[in-house]
Amino acid sequence: MNWEKNKATLDSLLAAGKNSELRGALMMLNVVDIAEYMTTLETDKMLRLYRLLPKDISADVFAYMDDEQRRKLIESIGDKEVGALVDDMFVDDAVDFLEEMPAGLVRRVLANVSEDQRKVINRILSYPDNSAGSIMTTEYCEFHEGITAREAMKELKRTGIDKETIYTLYVLDAQRKLIGILPLRKLILAEPDTLIEQLMDPSFVCVGTLDDQEAVAEVVRKYDLTSVPVVDKEGRMVGIITADDIMDVIQDEATEDIEKMAALLPSENEYMKTNVFTLAKNRLPWLLFLMISGIFTGLIIQHFEDTLTNMAEIGVMLTACIPMLMGTGGNCGSQSSTLVIRGLAVGEISPADTLKILWKECRVSILVSVVLAAMAMAMQLFLFRRPFSVALTVSLAMIGTVVISKSIGCTLPMLAKKLKLDPALMAAPLITTIVDTCSLLILFLLATAIIKI
Amino acid sequence: MNWEKNKATLDSLLAAGKNSELRGALMMLNVVDIAEYMTTLETDKMLRLYRLLPKDISADVFAYMDDEQRRKLIESIGDKEVGALVDDMFVDDAVDFLEEMPAGLVRRVLANVSEDQRKVINRILSYPDNSAGSIMTTEYCEFHEGITAREAMKELKRTGIDKETIYTLYVLDAQRKLIGILPLRKLILAEPDTLIEQLMDPSFVCVGTLDDQEAVAEVVRKYDLTSVPVVDKEGRMVGIITADDIMDVIQDEATEDIEKMAALLPSENEYMKTNVFTLAKNRLPWLLFLMISGIFTGLIIQHFEDTLTNMAEIGVMLTACIPMLMGTGGNCGSQSSTLVIRGLAVGEISPADTLKILWKECRVSILVSVVLAAMAMAMQLFLFRRPFSVALTVSLAMIGTVVISKSIGCTLPMLAKKLKLDPALMAAPLITTIVDTCSLLILFLLATAIIKI
Repeated sequence: MNWEKNKATLDSLLAAGKNSELRGALMMLNVVDIAEYMTTLETDKMLRLYRLLPKDISADVFAYMDDEQRRKLIESIGDKEVGALVDDMFVDDAVDFLEEMPAGLVRRVLANVSEDQRKVINRILSYPDNSAGSIMTTEYCEFHEGITAREAMKELKRTGIDKETIYTLYVLDAQRKLIGILPLRKLILAEPDTLIEQLMDPSFVCVGTLDDQEAVAEVVRKYDLTSVPVVDKEGRMVGIITADDIMDVIQDEATEDIEKMAALLPSENEYMKTNVFTLAKNRLPWLLFLMISGIFTGLIIQHFEDTLTNMAEIGVMLTACIPMLMGTGGNCGSQSSTLVIRGLAVGEISPADTLKILWKECRVSILVSVVLAAMAMAMQLFLFRRPFSVALTVSLAMIGTVVISKSIGCTLPMLAKKLKLDPALMAAPLITTIVDTCSLLILFLLATAIIKI
Repeated sequence: MNWEKNKATLDSLLAAGKNSELRGALMMLNVVDIAEYMTTLETDKMLRLYRLLPKDISADVFAYMDDEQRRKLIESIGDKEVGALVDDMFVDDAVDFLEEMPAGLVRRVLANVSEDQRKVINRILSYPDNSAGSIMTTEYCEFHEGITAREAMKELKRTGIDKETIYTLYVLDAQRKLIGILPLRKLILAEPDTLIEQLMDPSFVCVGTLDDQEAVAEVVRKYDLTSVPVVDKEGRMVGIITADDIMDVIQDEATEDIEKMAALLPSENEYMKTNVFTLAKNRLPWLLFLMISGIFTGLIIQHFEDTLTNMAEIGVMLTACIPMLMGTGGNCGSQSSTLVIRGLAVGEISPADTLKILWKECRVSILVSVVLAAMAMAMQLFLFRRPFSVALTVSLAMIGTVVISKSIGCTLPMLAKKLKLDPALMAAPLITTIVDTCSLLILFLLATAIIKI
């Protein structure tokens, strides 16, 4: 939409109090855009606008508003209105909303919705966070075996209006076990007298209520589904998850991995809406841990303190190379760990590949390190005009650092996966800290051998 | 599916040459699973299995096979078979496939497909990489205004079988301009005599052929669409992009960002299928560039060479803190840059927020740095037993480093965005290198002032 122009129009209609025109204008807009417009308004104007919304879209608009405004809206409207609003929402949207609200408000909402909706909401709220059960919805189209395509179509026309999707239909047996799925396309193109069990696909893909949402996303993406059925331990159908929610899961899981890989405690809140104390709290634990791990590098340098002091000039020459060596080691390690972490996350790599990957990384690191070592040698000799023994020490240390950091970088995430930890924790920051220690040790050991310090 | 069991069954049927049973077993499987099974087979067995596939699913299975096997298959079958296979594919899948094939094979395929399919394929191949045009498909259901719901339904039953989706229908005017979209659900539930322009939604969301796929994904995700229409500059409808392809885009774009953030040249190929030389080639450019940037840290240390040598003991004490200081600075910078880069990528942050973010990061960094400095002070005094002047220097350097690295970490990605560069390039590795230089300078300047070296 032409956001600026539409916003200006709505602003002026709202200011002039032209309610009928406003209602007409709102009918031309997408619910997502209306919700976005509402976030720009103060509470009283937002409430006025909300009351003008056509009844059939007000629950949809509410589903796309931000948590802060939804809380204010619920606090400002009457009990009956609250009940009607949440009854009208799809149950997955209602749960999403309630999960972010304070307990008192949740109680008030649940006290006012219909008993059916309350039961379903409570059941979904009881599933563990990030499980398939917690993100599913129960508004799907189910049919029992034994009816014809014509009967199914008639039933669909009667009940379809309230379903989140009618494009995939689910066929159940008498025990409510899912026995097949039926794309609407097949139903429409079928002979009216065909039984639905002859049309349905009995080899469907489904997920369990307790499956992790990341695994569910992978299934939906792999099989190119528009929705996936959720079944309980006995194979009974309990809900569906639609592709639009899966897109959010894919995006959120990538964000979570990226945050973990940058030594941040992952947060589901937007950066701009998070306060300074929370941001600091999410960053400090890893920073402190990693800084304290820096003790090792300090201890190594302290251990070689006397030799460094005695060597005087040579000591400073070696010191001057430490940042370059550590930096390169850190970058090499983070390249390898990133590829492995992402490969594990999207399912391209499995823990069984550990040895194959280690062997591959060793070969890559030899190729890479020879080029880097040659460049380091040239820089030491011609740019910094160091003696050959120093240049040789630094180049050899470069090769050792690259090989070790790539080996550590690919092994640790695999190890984490095997230990059922999150591989994303074994990313750049931790790898860098470990590699720092290794590269220092390599440099000083080589220096002792070559320069005989 | 129960992969191990199914694979064993198929293996034994294939080995025993029981073709009819094999065909029956294949009919029970999902096309994605059949394609996955085929990747485990040698070429001759794979070909035998392919020939046994029911005609109506062979093109679908082919669409999910890997590039290597598709190339082998195309090379082994006759011209006519090639033509029929690619004619049967959805045009977006055919383009995906051809983009990965050698030029000679592409020519052979295009020479054998029908003229219509060839024209469409060539048009889509002509769009820039990663544009909406390059990932769209042309198999959508279009209707011209002026027909009734009944007529539309009849037309749909006649032509729907070959479309990628029939769940969203597109209404065009006489100039082929898109004037509205019509969800199939609305068509089914409508009175048969209603005109489709009365049912359609005229305020639809669409994208342009040249829009970047990342922007398209953002639109589809934001509006929870199952497909989005693609229009040319004149607003004429040319294709659609479906949610299943968007899920791949979201995943691939996240992977690309993660790779760039780890100083890797992004690659579309799976890690396990990429050879050692290509892996090394993707890693070397950034490693070399960053290593050479390490010259600055070397120069700084060299500049303070005499003072360091003269200070002897104190010099080594300061040196011993460099890795810890640089490490913490790098981690702080990468936390901030990561949050900003991801925020920009998912649209939560815009370049207009630069000052607000910088102010926020300054406050966060003061909170964080005070805690870290206190800990560093304690470590220097009680663990390493340094003189107070050294401990003070190190703690103050810690505060300076954290504040500067967080400021640089959040500013550079914003700057990149404004210069229309990819913010992901301003991630940990580059930030770390810049921060290394800053932290060294801060340490030495503070040391000169406090310890009077």
